[in-house]
Amino acid sequence: MRVLGVDPGLTRCGLGVVDGARPGQASLVAVGVVRTAADDDIGRRLCGIERAVDAWLDEHRPDAVAVERVFSQANVRTVMGTAQAGAVAIVAASRRGLPVALHTPSEVKAAVTGSGRADKAQVTTMVTRLLRLSDRPTPADAADALALAICHLWRGTALVRLSGAGVGPGVAPGAARPAAAGRIVPGRVAS
Amino acid sequence: MRVLGVDPGLTRCGLGVVDGARPGQASLVAVGVVRTAADDDIGRRLCGIERAVDAWLDEHRPDAVAVERVFSQANVRTVMGTAQAGAVAIVAASRRGLPVALHTPSEVKAAVTGSGRADKAQVTTMVTRLLRLSDRPTPADAADALALAICHLWRGTALVRLSGAGVGPGVAPGAARPAAAGRIVPGRVAS
Repeated sequence: MRVLGVDPGLTRCGLGVVDGARPGQASLVAVGVVRTAADDDIGRRLCGIERAVDAWLDEHRPDAVAVERVFSQANVRTVMGTAQAGAVAIVAASRRGLPVALHTPSEVKAAVTGSGRADKAQVTTMVTRLLRLSDRPTPADAADALALAICHLWRGTALVRLSGAGVGPGVAPGAARPAAAGRIVPGRVAS
Repeated sequence: MRVLGVDPGLTRCGLGVVDGARPGQASLVAVGVVRTAADDDIGRRLCGIERAVDAWLDEHRPDAVAVERVFSQANVRTVMGTAQAGAVAIVAASRRGLPVALHTPSEVKAAVTGSGRADKAQVTTMVTRLLRLSDRPTPADAADALALAICHLWRGTALVRLSGAGVGPGVAPGAARPAAAGRIVPGRVAS
């Protein structure tokens, strides 16, 4: 199963693609960040993000897309931009019939570090370790996009395992939408 | 000049198209509401809104699109849905090269009622009067979409008039993006 994780943002939108065949295992396919200029108008910024997401979907053909679910901790301006950029990614995936799941930051942190209150550095450290990367992914948005993809991958397989439906690349479509399925079950750490 | 106003929302997204040739004058072209089911997934809901906005752009060929700028007064869940639905409308317009302007609720209220603190009923009353409609547009989202379009139309022409660039359907492209141009100049009431 291949997942595109999207850490949405107007100024920097993190994109990360991860493959995984069984719980506790994941490998990097691609990681990057789309940037749009703060002084450009909102329409052009969102179109830029849409083009990038479409290009990644074309190139990497993920089975599912995981997008960060936004909460209101940050200031309103940031939250709005995050919601707008996230909507663009959700529509781009949904238009192709791909399942889209939203995961909260604490679900993502719990999936990769074991704690929902881990800090950014800890998340990046674990993403680097779990994907066996030689360098830490930067900026933080790129690492967060990979963490989202890993979270979705392991959450899906964990839920499938719990439901007795088997684990593997031929995972049931339902497993790609764990958002409605209740609590997160963090995957085991591979290394 | 023809403007599509969008009052964004996931459950109800108001759409209103208004024509205007000179300040204080406006006429109804079309008004409606797109509804998406609260129990449907977010991807399908946003795709439904995208299809509706695209269909309205195809059918009515507006010169500009005006979308409500969201603030955080309401609860987070509502604000997120509004931001997401708004982003879909912004991208749909921008993809076609149409200018997109964002207006705050108080700018819209001031444009149609003369007061930024008018209530919803007052906005609907003035929209009904300004467009010389026999019935009040319902639901409120439909009336708000028309108010947005009127606001954009008159704000644009007022700014063009102030800048000495002439008024009329052949309005300069810059006039369609008054968001960056500072304070609103409410149009005169026609009736």
